[in-house]
Amino acid sequence: MANSKWEYVKEFEQPDKLLPNTWIVVRIDGRGFTKFADKYGFEKPNDRRALDLMNAAAKAVVSELPDITIAYGISDEYSFVLHKSCHLFQRRSSKVVTTVVSTFTAYYIYLWSTFFPDAPLSPPLPSFDGRAVCYPTVQNLRDYMSWRQADCHINNLYNTVFWALIQRGGMDNKEAEKALAGTVSGDKHEILFSKFGINYNNEPEIYKKGSVIFRDYELVEPGSHQAAAEIDGLAEPTQQSKTQAEKDKKKRAKARIVVEHLDIIKDEFWDRRPWLLSNKPGKIPKEP
Amino acid sequence: MANSKWEYVKEFEQPDKLLPNTWIVVRIDGRGFTKFADKYGFEKPNDRRALDLMNAAAKAVVSELPDITIAYGISDEYSFVLHKSCHLFQRRSSKVVTTVVSTFTAYYIYLWSTFFPDAPLSPPLPSFDGRAVCYPTVQNLRDYMSWRQADCHINNLYNTVFWALIQRGGMDNKEAEKALAGTVSGDKHEILFSKFGINYNNEPEIYKKGSVIFRDYELVEPGSHQAAAEIDGLAEPTQQSKTQAEKDKKKRAKARIVVEHLDIIKDEFWDRRPWLLSNKPGKIPKEP
Amino acid sequence: MANSKWEYVKEFEQPDKLLPNTWIVVRIDGRGFTKFADKYGFEKPNDRRALDLMNAAAKAVVSELPDITIAYGISDEYSFVLHKSCHLFQRRSSKVVTTVVSTFTAYYIYLWSTFFPDAPLSPPLPSFDGRAVCYPTVQNLRDYMSWRQADCHINNLYNTVFWALIQRGGMDNKEAEKALAGTVSGDKHEILFSKFGINYNNEPEIYKKGSVIFRDYELVEPGSHQAAAEIDGLAEPTQQSKTQAEKDKKKRAKARIVVEHLDIIKDEFWDRRPWLLSNKPGKIPKEP
Amino acid sequence: MANSKWEYVKEFEQPDKLLPNTWIVVRIDGRGFTKFADKYGFEKPNDRRALDLMNAAAKAVVSELPDITIAYGISDEYSFVLHKSCHLFQRRSSKVVTTVVSTFTAYYIYLWSTFFPDAPLSPPLPSFDGRAVCYPTVQNLRDYMSWRQADCHINNLYNTVFWALIQRGGMDNKEAEKALAGTVSGDKHEILFSKFGINYNNEPEIYKKGSVIFRDYELVEPGSHQAAAEIDGLAEPTQQSKTQAEKDKKKRAKARIVVEHLDIIKDEFWDRRPWLLSNKPGKIPKEP
Repeated sequence: MANSKWEYVKEFEQPDKLLPNTWIVVRIDGRGFTKFADKYGFEKPNDRRALDLMNAAAKAVVSELPDITIAYGISDEYSFVLHKSCHLFQRRSSKVVTTVVSTFTAYYIYLWSTFFPDAPLSPPLPSFDGRAVCYPTVQNLRDYMSWRQADCHINNLYNTVFWALIQRGGMDNKEAEKALAGTVSGDKHEILFSKFGINYNNEPEIYKKGSVIFRDYELVEPGSHQAAAEIDGLAEPTQQSKTQAEKDKKKRAKARIVVEHLDIIKDEFWDRRPWLLSNKPGKIPKEP
Repeated sequence: MANSKWEYVKEFEQPDKLLPNTWIVVRIDGRGFTKFADKYGFEKPNDRRALDLMNAAAKAVVSELPDITIAYGISDEYSFVLHKSCHLFQRRSSKVVTTVVSTFTAYYIYLWSTFFPDAPLSPPLPSFDGRAVCYPTVQNLRDYMSWRQADCHINNLYNTVFWALIQRGGMDNKEAEKALAGTVSGDKHEILFSKFGINYNNEPEIYKKGSVIFRDYELVEPGSHQAAAEIDGLAEPTQQSKTQAEKDKKKRAKARIVVEHLDIIKDEFWDRRPWLLSNKPGKIPKEP
Repeated sequence: MANSKWEYVKEFEQPDKLLPNTWIVVRIDGRGFTKFADKYGFEKPNDRRALDLMNAAAKAVVSELPDITIAYGISDEYSFVLHKSCHLFQRRSSKVVTTVVSTFTAYYIYLWSTFFPDAPLSPPLPSFDGRAVCYPTVQNLRDYMSWRQADCHINNLYNTVFWALIQRGGMDNKEAEKALAGTVSGDKHEILFSKFGINYNNEPEIYKKGSVIFRDYELVEPGSHQAAAEIDGLAEPTQQSKTQAEKDKKKRAKARIVVEHLDIIKDEFWDRRPWLLSNKPGKIPKEP
Repeated sequence: MANSKWEYVKEFEQPDKLLPNTWIVVRIDGRGFTKFADKYGFEKPNDRRALDLMNAAAKAVVSELPDITIAYGISDEYSFVLHKSCHLFQRRSSKVVTTVVSTFTAYYIYLWSTFFPDAPLSPPLPSFDGRAVCYPTVQNLRDYMSWRQADCHINNLYNTVFWALIQRGGMDNKEAEKALAGTVSGDKHEILFSKFGINYNNEPEIYKKGSVIFRDYELVEPGSHQAAAEIDGLAEPTQQSKTQAEKDKKKRAKARIVVEHLDIIKDEFWDRRPWLLSNKPGKIPKEP
């Protein structure tokens, strides 16, 4: 029963290499999470336990795949960024995407009971889909990140008012929708404040800004490092010496992976953390 | 903070629709399972609990995704076949593949403790990668399935002798490898029998044949149904009436999903289960 | 000046292999041919010289690329079909498409003066774009061909009435458009007949049916040959012996390439010319 | 004969959009030009008429497709560069590539008799294939161009010596090959000079450097313009006002398209012609 006569079927596999020298963003999304959130009674507009679980799973992904330089999450979605010089799995799209999705899913299920000790999982289980997108320049990448964080802000402001109108204003869904139709950002702040005494600016940062995960090194003074433009200009990164690559790897392994809720739209975030775009590990901060 | 100025980044997403009217095979593989198997002390050459867990996870995938008509698994890999008429997720490759991988991973982690009650999981967790391949004809699809089952046979025969030489013959890895170098199938049977009194043919079917999962209906007499050639000939499936689609869906939901260890290379398996290729549910067998 | 430090740029080339075991259709279209037709005073609704030139160029393409089994042309478009077993250029899409487009263009320019002796070409020159599409089954392929021939019929009937209304009915473009708005096929026949005494059925076949190009062998009795379903069923064509391949090649080289104006929607066309789908050359007819 | 029942075949067409914000290089190559060159008695190692014809055809392509910012040709190949902000044909790969290939072929055939008045074309006609490759950064693009020009140099030096050994040294092909085996650049210069009195540096620039085609504006002082890094940094080009776009278009139309034989590896070429990378037309030089 030699299998050689069937091996021709391998020829039907199509290569799917992501264009070299571009930033790879793998975005994953919860499948059917509206229904899933209902099943487990997620709090509205934000369930802190659910977000913490997303962050814990994402942090594990970043930890297991050092090629990920930064990740950003809101609600039931997470974006993982691989550096443009990354050669993980020869940049095979399916392999990169499924590895991220599978690792994330594994930790989501595994850690569930830590965050929801009183609500054991039962089938159908939560799952995630994902895709990879290539961005040629730092500007494109940062615009992608800005787009997601702006979405976070817009959605959270809307949801905060919407659920206040329902939970504290006694409206039903339709009434709340109608009350918000055509309102702009300022109107929503106003409703929150005048009707419910809520100052939106005092809402928790995790809800307003989403969560950003990265390896932490000592912050640098803006302007003291390689400019984004230079990073774009890199063709293929010059082949590192093995010693240097080893050193970098060790530094990365030592770095603390942090989950923060910062503004990633403004330059400051990126300027003070040049390692995010340069892929050169920074200086490990001294233990406090 | 309108996000409209960043939305252009959506244009970088590339469509990845799988060619219509072709069979889609999603194959997933355990990542780094050699190491993982060592960590949890999987038995050699086959760990029955590990295979049962793979099968249980795969069965859950087939159950949650009714577009899957058949699945076949060996060792730490599983192939899921979607019918050529399937429109799941508009046949978007990333979406199809990541959904299968994520659902499988979720159940693998979730069910772990059922099959390994004494070996709780700890990070790094098991994960899976996957890819989708299109096959234009029934013959191509069956050749793919035959290729996997032939691989199962070849690997299992080799591993059975290899580990017998080590576990019962006192050899080390290198000696066993050397003893097997250049041997053909017959030689291996002979070694097993003469040295260890093992008749390979009596080994458990699950090890020799792998596992095949499908919805079970009443077997039919070969020759009484639509030929494979006719199925190939179908362009786009004629639009079913909604009533018929509803009926089929109900039948499928009622059908028992079974895990078997059968020869899927020979015609008989396919001839007696025409629903696997036609995608028309068969007759639900009466409860015994 | 070794070029090794720049050779990495080859890695950016993406593979574009067309799925094996599927029919490849390369369709080419004239670029900006409305304007081009005006410049050279093409007759309306059909310019016989222009169609003859298209056919002559297409015939040259079929002659130079024996992997093409059939071609079909209407107006300024042509579709070239490569057999599903074809391995031309390892099925690289760019290579296949550009070769067809370039060869067609070369002959179109080269033969121009034969068909338009009184209207020498001048820049900007006519050019063509093209794309490749894969069809998994004979039915899909035949539906594609039927789609193009139905389009030919619909367009030609419309154009024939439209230009009769203008050229013989004294209408301007807008009036003719208006007169035809909402008419069905029968209405158009009626207008032609009642207003202009034209029986559409007597119009030249080349205008009504388009042009089909293929290698000609002796017609067979329908039913006496390999069924389409069998052709679909072929996985990879069994490796021909070299002698057989040589014989086939010679037969193909000997076969006359014909340009006909036949119904390719009905079964008869295909049933009597089994070589079109089987890729096995037929019997060379005796010279008359 | 409504064609609606067949229109589903359009669904098999796969999108093939080239990644936005990347440089598109379309490279075309003569098909079977070794044989073709023999048929028409091209001179060795370089046939000036053949190169002039290539350049004339390429110049026509650049003229008809203003999205092309620069083109570079050697022997029977030509590379056409479309600016990273280009939206020609919505960046559909097939459409872009076939349009370039077809336009080039059309002019090659059309202009043949101008350059080879005594050798009329006869079938089989010359034709070209092509492919598109995306480069994310200016550095990648310039490395691609450098790679081609380095290839030009290496090949031309080899061919110059090779044919000198044959034409003037009385060797046959094998002897010349053997004589050159293992030689480095310096050796080849030495052979040319010592054996045949040829100073390679005095060979015509068109043979040593290849040909570069671009729209010509007034040269600028290096350093006075937008840096390459800035160009890389551009995400999507800011939407130009319509007036500005119109102005640019007119300027481009007025610009003279030149064929030069310059060093495109060094920075100077690019620094003094910032319009090549910025896509902003320069200053039209005053007529002399």
